[in-house]
Order: sequence, then C-alpha cells, then structure tokens
Amino acid sequence: MAELVGNCLIGQTGGPTAVVNASVAGVVAEALNHECIEEVYGSLNGVLGLLNEDFVDLAAESQQAIRGLRYTPGAALGSCRAKLKKPADFERVLAVFAAHNIRYYFHIGDGESQETAAKLAETAAAQNYELRVIGIPKTVENDLPATDHCPGYGSAIKYIGATVKELALDAEALGQGDLVTLVEVMGRNTGWLAAGSSLAKRRDHPNDPPHLVYLPEVPFSSEKFVEDVRRVLKREKHCVVVVGEGLVDKDGNYVAVETSTADAGHAQLGGVGEALKDIVEAQVGAKARVARLGVTQRAAAHLASKTDADEAFLAGQAAVKAAINGETAKLVTLVRGDGDQYTCETGLSALTEVVGNLKKLPREWINEDGVSLNFQFFRYATPLIQGEVTVPFDNGLPAYAKLAREGVDKTLPAYES
Amino acid sequence: MAELVGNCLIGQTGGPTAVVNASVAGVVAEALNHECIEEVYGSLNGVLGLLNEDFVDLAAESQQAIRGLRYTPGAALGSCRAKLKKPADFERVLAVFAAHNIRYYFHIGDGESQETAAKLAETAAAQNYELRVIGIPKTVENDLPATDHCPGYGSAIKYIGATVKELALDAEALGQGDLVTLVEVMGRNTGWLAAGSSLAKRRDHPNDPPHLVYLPEVPFSSEKFVEDVRRVLKREKHCVVVVGEGLVDKDGNYVAVETSTADAGHAQLGGVGEALKDIVEAQVGAKARVARLGVTQRAAAHLASKTDADEAFLAGQAAVKAAINGETAKLVTLVRGDGDQYTCETGLSALTEVVGNLKKLPREWINEDGVSLNFQFFRYATPLIQGEVTVPFDNGLPAYAKLAREGVDKTLPAYES
Repeated sequence: MAELVGNCLIGQTGGPTAVVNASVAGVVAEALNHECIEEVYGSLNGVLGLLNEDFVDLAAESQQAIRGLRYTPGAALGSCRAKLKKPADFERVLAVFAAHNIRYYFHIGDGESQETAAKLAETAAAQNYELRVIGIPKTVENDLPATDHCPGYGSAIKYIGATVKELALDAEALGQGDLVTLVEVMGRNTGWLAAGSSLAKRRDHPNDPPHLVYLPEVPFSSEKFVEDVRRVLKREKHCVVVVGEGLVDKDGNYVAVETSTADAGHAQLGGVGEALKDIVEAQVGAKARVARLGVTQRAAAHLASKTDADEAFLAGQAAVKAAINGETAKLVTLVRGDGDQYTCETGLSALTEVVGNLKKLPREWINEDGVSLNFQFFRYATPLIQGEVTVPFDNGLPAYAKLAREGVDKTLPAYES
Repeated sequence: MAELVGNCLIGQTGGPTAVVNASVAGVVAEALNHECIEEVYGSLNGVLGLLNEDFVDLAAESQQAIRGLRYTPGAALGSCRAKLKKPADFERVLAVFAAHNIRYYFHIGDGESQETAAKLAETAAAQNYELRVIGIPKTVENDLPATDHCPGYGSAIKYIGATVKELALDAEALGQGDLVTLVEVMGRNTGWLAAGSSLAKRRDHPNDPPHLVYLPEVPFSSEKFVEDVRRVLKREKHCVVVVGEGLVDKDGNYVAVETSTADAGHAQLGGVGEALKDIVEAQVGAKARVARLGVTQRAAAHLASKTDADEAFLAGQAAVKAAINGETAKLVTLVRGDGDQYTCETGLSALTEVVGNLKKLPREWINEDGVSLNFQFFRYATPLIQGEVTVPFDNGLPAYAKLAREGVDKTLPAYES
C-alpha cells in the first residue's frame, strides 16, 4: 500500500462526555508518530468547522494542554448538534479538505453522527479524492452497536453510582418511614445509564440502594410503581428510585415529555422524576424529593473512570493507526477479552453497520421484578468504572485544560448553506 | 471547678452535610482523652433518639469506622426534622439522660435546631440536673450568626464551584449563540451557596462562568433578567446562570414555590430553575437547560473541602474541651484570624444568641449589577474550599464508613408523646 502523505483533521460532534477530549489527545499523540501526517488540525464545533473552514492548529498546542485533555470535560474543539444534509454540504467539505490537503479525518461522535463520517467517506470515494475517514465512538448513552461499550459510559455511571450512594446516605439519615428519593438520569432510548446506578449496591446486598431502577426497556405501570415503593418503604424506611428519562408506558409513549418552545428539532425529554414524585405524593402519601442530574452526568470529569479515560485515549490512537494502515469508513470499536480478568483492545467495524442501529440493554440482564439488574449486568459494567483519573486542583477547584486554538488561515470564500 | 464524671451523648439533627460526621468523629476522638467521660453514646435520629431512649455505643465502634466518619456523607447516627416542643418532651429527655447518667450532650445542628439544645440546658438547670450542653454548628446554608462560617459550607461550595465549571465547559462546547444553562442551588433565605458558585471564575476573569448569579438578597426582576441574559449571550455565545432556590421578587414573594401534598410542615421551595427556563424560552427565545443539584450539594463527600472537613472535626473536639472546662449552653464557633494568611480557631457563643437569627450575605459583597460578587466575597470564601479529602475507593466507587450501631439497653418505659 502506498503511503498517503497529507494533513489530518479531528472533529467532535454531539453532547460532550467526561472523556471525549481524551480521544482527541489520543489522535494528536499518535499522529506525532507518523511522518506521513504533516499537520494536525482540529475542526471548531464539529461539522460547522468543516463547512466554514474553521480549523485550529493542534500541533501548535503545548504538550501540557494536550496532556490536560486527558482529564478535561466538555469538547475542547467545540461541538455542535448540526448535521451535514444536502449533497452540496458534502461537496463543500471535500473542497475545504482539498484546500488544506486533509487526507485523514477523525470523526468523534455518537451513532447518529457517524452517518456524516460514512457519507464523507463515500463522497470522497465517488470523487476519487483520497481520504481516510475513521470514526471514534463517544456517548454516555452506550447505545452504539458493534462496540462492547462506548467511551464516556464508564465515567458517567461511575459518577451516577457515587452520587446515588451519597444521596442514599443522606436519605437514610432522614428516612423515618416516608422519604422517597427520585434520581432522574439520562437515557433517551436505553436504560444503560439508569442500570449503571445499581453498581452502588455492595456485592451480595440486593437490598442496598438504589432500591428501584426504572428502565426504558421495561414498560412503566404506575400501579406497580406504587406497590414497589410501598414495599421498599416498609422494609427500608426510605426508598431510592433511579429512573431513566426515556421511560415509556405499555403503549410506548414517554411518561414525561417537556414542551419546549425554543428547541424545534429535538424532542426535549425530562421531568420524569417530577412525574413520579407526583405519583408518590398523591398515591403513596410519602414525601418525595427529586435530583435531576442533567448534564453533570457527562461533565463530571473530576470523578471520571480511569479505565474509561484510558480507553478513550486508546480509541484515538487506534483511529490513527487504522488510517495509516489504509482503513477508511470504519469505526474504532472496543473489544473485551474472553478471560476472567477484564481486558480491552480495539477493533474496527464498518461505519455503515453502526448508523441507525441502537444497542438496547439486554432484557435477560434485567431481573424478573423489572426494577433491578442481575449478575450479567454487574459483570459487564463493573470493570468499566475502575480507577480514578488524577485531576490537578488549583485554588480548591479542578484545573481543566484550555486549548490556545491558534487559527488556520482560510483559503476559500465563505460558504452560503 | 469540680470534675463532672459521667457519660456523653452526641446527636445529629437536620439535613446532613458532607462533613457533619467529621464533627461526630471529633467528639469521639476528643472524649477518649478525658477520663471523666465514661461512656460515649450516640442518639439515633437526633431528638427522636433522645425521646425514645434510642442510643448506640460509640466507644464500641472500631477505630476504622470512626476514622471513616471524617469522609463519609449523610448522618451516621441518623438525623431528623422533628423538634422537641412541649415541656413534657424536655422532661422526658432529662429523665432519659438521668437514667443513663448523661452529663455531656453535644448537639450538632443548624441555627433553628440549636433552640432544642438551649432549652435542654435551661430545663436541666431549672431541675438542678448537672448537664453540660454544647452545640456544634452544621449547615451548608452558612446562615448562622456568631460564627465566621459553618462547617458544611466550604464543601458544598467546592462541589457547586466544580460542577458549575464542568457544566460551563459542556455548555461552551455546544453554545453557538443560544444556550442558557440554569443551575438551581439550595439557599432558602440566603445566597451563600449561590454566591459560592462564583469561585469557578478564574482570578481577574470576571466574564468567566457563572455569568449571572441570582441571590435571595437581591429582588428579582424578570425584565432585568432577560436583559442580563441577552447581554451575556451576545458576548459569550452561551450563558451560565446560577440561581438560589429562595429567590424573591420585589414584594418579597418567592419566585417559585412547589406545592407538595405530603409535606405539611415545611414549605417546599424549588423549581426556580424551571421558572427561569420558561422566561428564557418565551422572552429571550434561546434554548435553556436546567441542572437542579438538589441534595447532592450537601452529600458529595467525594469532593469535600479538606479545610472544611478538618474544621468540622476541630469543632467536635472543641465542644468536648469546652464542656470539660465547665461550659454549657454554648455554641462552638469558627473564628478567622486577622492575618493575610487564612487561619481558623474555635470560639464559643451563647446558644441563645444564635437561635432565631439569620446571617445574610452582606449587600456590600454583591456588585452593583446585582448578579456578581466582589473581592470581599472571594477573600471570604476562597480559603474555605482549599484542599481535597482523600476518600478511599473500593471497586470503582467511594467506600464510605458504616457504623456498627451497637444498641444501648433501654431502662425506661416507652414514651407516649
């Protein structure tokens, strides 16, 4: 295979995670090893930067800054919810790539956003523009197929598990028979995050909090919910409930959808904690309080999983290695070893296999009661939260890295989309 | 002064903090130094334990467990919202004390709950029962007079500051001109917690997030709020707003009160984040998202301030020393040194001076814009969040301590309140 000499570009899309910047660090660190990669650029705000030729020079960043990305939340290059839609958009991006001799493009994003990467690779091939496109998975929701798990998920459930443990201690102190703590977590379509809260239970203590976990995979019945809560209150004097925002009833309708005047594109989920609170107060007659963790779940890098952060970095490195080896239109995957001891290496999957597919929490990992997880889930998830990332503190607060973002000169006229 | 020989008892009341158990550890550790203290008991669930003669033997706990209290959230002895009301309640408690030869009582609680401690001391004196009662301050709300600051506050604002910093990085990544992040924090009557979020700003970077802080001390106007948000969005492309739950309008009415069917005693605040979200969406036309930190603010011991945890422990020790020295009906206070370098020692104040008084955030620490704090607040609050508590982790999550709670035999008939 002939060596492909040119520049590389990294883009971040969708909601950030605690470790998505670690993947950027992995790409940058690995790119340094390969002479055929001349410049290392970042696209500002994902596909917006691709369209608007808004690039920064990542090779100009200090090594401290790149190291700092391994523990800094948010998206250091900026992200966006926008997608490339029209064929003209893809042609524009290829013109931008040609203008900067971009030959390697690394697309960090969730399943939906990898469609952009797949189509870019396709358009480039159709135009005989030699380009290697590699996707890097990223989502706290853990709903990508083809990969054992997604970078971002382990840190999110480590944070959720720790927070549920802390909230439960608070509730236990005040619970004298009538306190229900409702914790609302993310998860539009799957219960991966809600399920992760159950790691707060000690081994062989099934009655530990969280006492009840409501998952989008199990149709919600308010009658059963009231019974469940009553049973736990009787036994434990207080009840910790974790609920995924994407909870649906037996007809498949969301239990809580927020009406939002400003967000036309995306249906805003949320408020399911408040909905369950109303049920508890009206039908159980107990006190209820709601913690809605919101985006803290994907931003709390101070409690990131070292396993997760290291794997996110590894995925970035693996993407560069794959591209150098001539791969394109592939997604880096995480592959778990077969042994008793957890091991993880990277693999590759076709991008087209990932797009439009959703990995649900397997029904056989959920106990028959519908509100707790069995050993298969614990075996799966426990290794993902191991280890703590060392975040430096300055003046009492985490000292996160900030890129200098030295701009790359534009060479094309502005794009009118 | 004649030595008073007898047993000591510790009670925890009100909402827990990240460091309230450190004060218990301080009492237990110091009590070991004094032979005149024979048994060291804990009252289960605060005043409920006092009434029901529900004590545990703290001297029977392992030293690991007592050490573990220095980083364990919740209230290890249990807490409660109940108060002693009738004279018969106080007489009952004194009968319980006499039955167990309790001569030292340490009452950990906020301003309101110290009324119980004050009245217990008074009742004992009236009955010539020799008893020394010392209050130990505890509240994330930091609203006690007489003390420079309250144990619990520093850890809460360290957590809030770090969380706001992380949420801001997330928002900055997605902010392309229209994203408002609303963070609702506790603070029924004062803005101490909301103000603490401003520690997330770097020194000399007044435009850092949080961009706008709405405090109960400054009457809220939705017109000004809309202007404030528009100004920040224009400048920063996104806007991080922190709001205290106790926000009031110019007539002194809460901006958001939740109706709760189950909580007759306490008016439930909360929902002010959602109320501001509605204003943003309807009047600014921007996207808004709400993080409601809830009790995580007082439970997140994994990010506790070492300064705060150490001072909470110190306050427990000081309470024992004061009682041994013959003091009663006093509250331990934290006294800041005059020097440039932060120092803190303990003092004593009459319990009666504390009860019913509230320390508001000084108006002169708030800038004229009403939505930011000046150097006086930073000078006050910055030392309180310094240092990190080392929490042991087990299998990926914080390993918090649990007391064995060996019960003390009851000797009296049950109490019919």
